[in-house]
Amino acid sequence: MPTPREVFLSALRRQPVPRTPWWVMRQAGRYLPEYRAVRGNHQFLDMVRDPALAAEVTLQPIRRFGMDVAVIFSDILVPCAAMGVDVRFEEGEGPKLAPAIRTRADVDRLRDFDAARDTAFLGDAIRRVRSELGPDRAILGFCGAPWTTASYFVEGGTSRNFEHAKALMHGEPATFARLCERLVDNLVPYLAMQVDAGADAVQIFDSWGGALDARTWREHLLPHVTRLVRETKARTRVPIILYVNGASQLLEVLADSGADAIGLDWRVDPVEARARIGSRCAIQGNLDPTILFASPEVVEREARRMLEGFAGSTGHVFNLGSGILPGTPVASMEALARVLGSVPLGGAR
Amino acid sequence: MPTPREVFLSALRRQPVPRTPWWVMRQAGRYLPEYRAVRGNHQFLDMVRDPALAAEVTLQPIRRFGMDVAVIFSDILVPCAAMGVDVRFEEGEGPKLAPAIRTRADVDRLRDFDAARDTAFLGDAIRRVRSELGPDRAILGFCGAPWTTASYFVEGGTSRNFEHAKALMHGEPATFARLCERLVDNLVPYLAMQVDAGADAVQIFDSWGGALDARTWREHLLPHVTRLVRETKARTRVPIILYVNGASQLLEVLADSGADAIGLDWRVDPVEARARIGSRCAIQGNLDPTILFASPEVVEREARRMLEGFAGSTGHVFNLGSGILPGTPVASMEALARVLGSVPLGGAR
Repeated sequence: MPTPREVFLSALRRQPVPRTPWWVMRQAGRYLPEYRAVRGNHQFLDMVRDPALAAEVTLQPIRRFGMDVAVIFSDILVPCAAMGVDVRFEEGEGPKLAPAIRTRADVDRLRDFDAARDTAFLGDAIRRVRSELGPDRAILGFCGAPWTTASYFVEGGTSRNFEHAKALMHGEPATFARLCERLVDNLVPYLAMQVDAGADAVQIFDSWGGALDARTWREHLLPHVTRLVRETKARTRVPIILYVNGASQLLEVLADSGADAIGLDWRVDPVEARARIGSRCAIQGNLDPTILFASPEVVEREARRMLEGFAGSTGHVFNLGSGILPGTPVASMEALARVLGSVPLGGAR
Repeated sequence: MPTPREVFLSALRRQPVPRTPWWVMRQAGRYLPEYRAVRGNHQFLDMVRDPALAAEVTLQPIRRFGMDVAVIFSDILVPCAAMGVDVRFEEGEGPKLAPAIRTRADVDRLRDFDAARDTAFLGDAIRRVRSELGPDRAILGFCGAPWTTASYFVEGGTSRNFEHAKALMHGEPATFARLCERLVDNLVPYLAMQVDAGADAVQIFDSWGGALDARTWREHLLPHVTRLVRETKARTRVPIILYVNGASQLLEVLADSGADAIGLDWRVDPVEARARIGSRCAIQGNLDPTILFASPEVVEREARRMLEGFAGSTGHVFNLGSGILPGTPVASMEALARVLGSVPLGGAR
């Protein structure tokens, strides 16, 4: 019987598996009472930078629900801080980055960081997770995609419309491209460091990629994402998942990136996605996370429907279509665990 | 030479036109200094309910830029207030509706309103616009789509994730359907009143429709939108535009609604949209509104590219892919007016 780790990695490689592996984006987080207990009065970024705390909350959902994959508790803005920009999370607001990066001089002032030294806490957290997790489950590392990360730099935080980032992209494409190049230069060794520490696969999060049409994504982002994927694979040999929230107009472009798997938001029909992506990539997703606010019966019904939508094709990793929402009932996650047939860490399958 | 009104209406009917007609969603608004001068200390909803003020700001962009269409200054939440829910716009925040509508009893308590009496200010504003606009330009009325309006009711305001509205839809579909039915019952006479007052066409705004996958939209919304379109057409005989922000996964479903035109956000490729929608509907859109934050040269280039993308097919109305953003430079709108070859109200073509 293959281990959960093997099932996950086989699915990412589009090899036959005895069951569908699963994990949930943001599975370590606020919907869990044990997370809130650990969180206490800690600042979010202080938890990310504390290997013991980060490892503990990474493991919590595996102990309770038994996902196949432990996604390391971290944040896509960790590299932004390491590149010399001040990153703050104010309670109840999105992150704030200062200064905003909007000119060629701003881009040039960014610092290249040494992942093993400047983000050592992340490697330490991954090693701690492996120690408790054992060899049978997978660890997933991650980073933000060039567009998403660049938009945080240019906007100085989250944005509703990305006016500044898009104006830079369309109005000063060379400066925008240089920003993306510097990001990729730093993200490749950052992902490689996570793999060196024990990550079995990595995910590139393009959380805001859905704000772009396919022509724009192909012209301004695909070269950078392709290089990020290619160089990371050359260094690490691990499978790479490219997740985009709002991907329905982008599927063909994303499949051109060379990623092993495409992570889909809930708006995309699984059958259509498989037809459009073809056999080039595995698919991860894509239950609407708001379904988890309905009753456990509805959650089970919709999760089964999702599995059936991907049935008959290899290469599916079950996930939500975006991160699990604060306030999600624990009973809904228990319903998912039942449907996926998973066994809590420490339990017997 | 056909009038701008005729050009717009012909394009909506997919008849040949000598040039592409245009207007811009939210064209009456905050990016204009003359709007801010009129707005002064008025509350937003007070302006909507004052026919003289609403007519004045409706006309402002036509005087300056000469669009073919005057979209009446109003709000999709006007019918919510008329149905007995308290609607407030706090400065710098989204609208707040109270009480939230979440149970069958809540739905039953909503009031059926008399559009000619309870929203007389809107009919008066349309008549005032016609008086100054003259017969040669079109007036567009509008309402919110069932999903978008229902989500405001259920969430009690704007929402990032629509947890409550989606949980109601999936968990208590009969209650959700009843809410949509009551909305359509009230929206048909509301749109008919606008046409009686002088509107040449109406647009149904599904601003949050992009939060749904196609199966969900087809199962839970299409019946209500189809009835809204069918009954409004039967009463008014005017063309109907169905606009959805985030429509890339929904095009085929939207075309099944019976609407004359589909309004597209900027993420959808025009050529692909035409291929997927076919000849059933005209297409309205779809320049990314953030392009208007780049230089006038970039705005002109991208607007021409957009026109070329739709070239060779009848039935295109130029617009942005979503509402014009606050802070948009007036020079960008001037660039659009140049590309579209429009003549300010009172000027000579």
